[in-house]
Amino acid sequence: MSNRDRLLEAAIEAIERDGEAALRVDQVAEAVGVTKPSIYHFFHDRDGLIVAAQAERYRRSITYLLADLDLDIVLECESQAEYARLIHAVVMSSTSPDGVLRRRLRAQVLGSAVSRPALQESVGEVHRQTVATLAKVLGYGQKRGWFRPEFSSSAVAAWWFGAIFGRHLVEDYSNADDANAWPAITWSTIAHLMGVSADL
Amino acid sequence: MSNRDRLLEAAIEAIERDGEAALRVDQVAEAVGVTKPSIYHFFHDRDGLIVAAQAERYRRSITYLLADLDLDIVLECESQAEYARLIHAVVMSSTSPDGVLRRRLRAQVLGSAVSRPALQESVGEVHRQTVATLAKVLGYGQKRGWFRPEFSSSAVAAWWFGAIFGRHLVEDYSNADDANAWPAITWSTIAHLMGVSADL
Repeated sequence: MSNRDRLLEAAIEAIERDGEAALRVDQVAEAVGVTKPSIYHFFHDRDGLIVAAQAERYRRSITYLLADLDLDIVLECESQAEYARLIHAVVMSSTSPDGVLRRRLRAQVLGSAVSRPALQESVGEVHRQTVATLAKVLGYGQKRGWFRPEFSSSAVAAWWFGAIFGRHLVEDYSNADDANAWPAITWSTIAHLMGVSADL
Repeated sequence: MSNRDRLLEAAIEAIERDGEAALRVDQVAEAVGVTKPSIYHFFHDRDGLIVAAQAERYRRSITYLLADLDLDIVLECESQAEYARLIHAVVMSSTSPDGVLRRRLRAQVLGSAVSRPALQESVGEVHRQTVATLAKVLGYGQKRGWFRPEFSSSAVAAWWFGAIFGRHLVEDYSNADDANAWPAITWSTIAHLMGVSADL
């Protein structure tokens, strides 16, 4: 790993351990065994290091999110029933503790981005790629009449991604029953937007 | 206003101007014309001041959110058509710039809460009250057969509140067409969960 990558990893570790506000540049430099000016060389300032680390955390969490969606299989499926089952699997996935952590992480990064234009830009790039990927999946279904044409595939993809983001609020602040109902309610709404029965 | 309230307002202003990370205790004290120990007296430390200010910002934004919902009218309405129109009005509301700012604010506070247990607790209290209010509205409909009984009113209320939170991602990171479609898609899904046609 290059010194830049090692500094980035150390910053990610520090943020995940103590939160962004507690990040100290000298501790990150010490953890990697370089001097502080090294950080300023690669990341300009403390804020630049935080932005790079948070953007990378966000990017990784989305890579995991999309890993639940096997694009090669979805974009080759040949019946509405199979297509609906694949979409259903994505909606129901990530009830694992790892999924909870990833959504919490995204909430943290998006919150931090509100007052950091540079982070907003990095997050925006990942966001557009993610929505484009989901839109491709939904567009494949719309072209074959397996998904209602009422709303554009891109608008439904953005809506769906927003709903996934909103799951953080439900699982971290609601009681267990309400949190556990989230996947089934979401599937009910997605099945409605597809125009299929929620009972597969 | 008491000194405590004035310090809280000054901290809220500082956070809204420059973000939480940039908040400086001495500047907040100076803005109010008190000394730093005053802040420590009321809020224990810098983090205590931030938690109190962020919790208050969150609480206020939710007060606005619920203001779009006229409980007295909803909980007295006498037909499914009127009930559906009232729910529809809530879903479609807050496309104003103020609504965007309030959702951005909530994203910021919830992100900050991920690594601040004290803030999580304050937010959790507001969250439970909000979901309880929405659940009351949905329960009123369910009792009259105007809302499908499939999911509990509390679970749908939590899901709905999560979806509203997710709108931040759509309006701040998606293109205008996709962001503009959000209310109509959400209404389509809520109408489906109610069991009514989306065309009122």
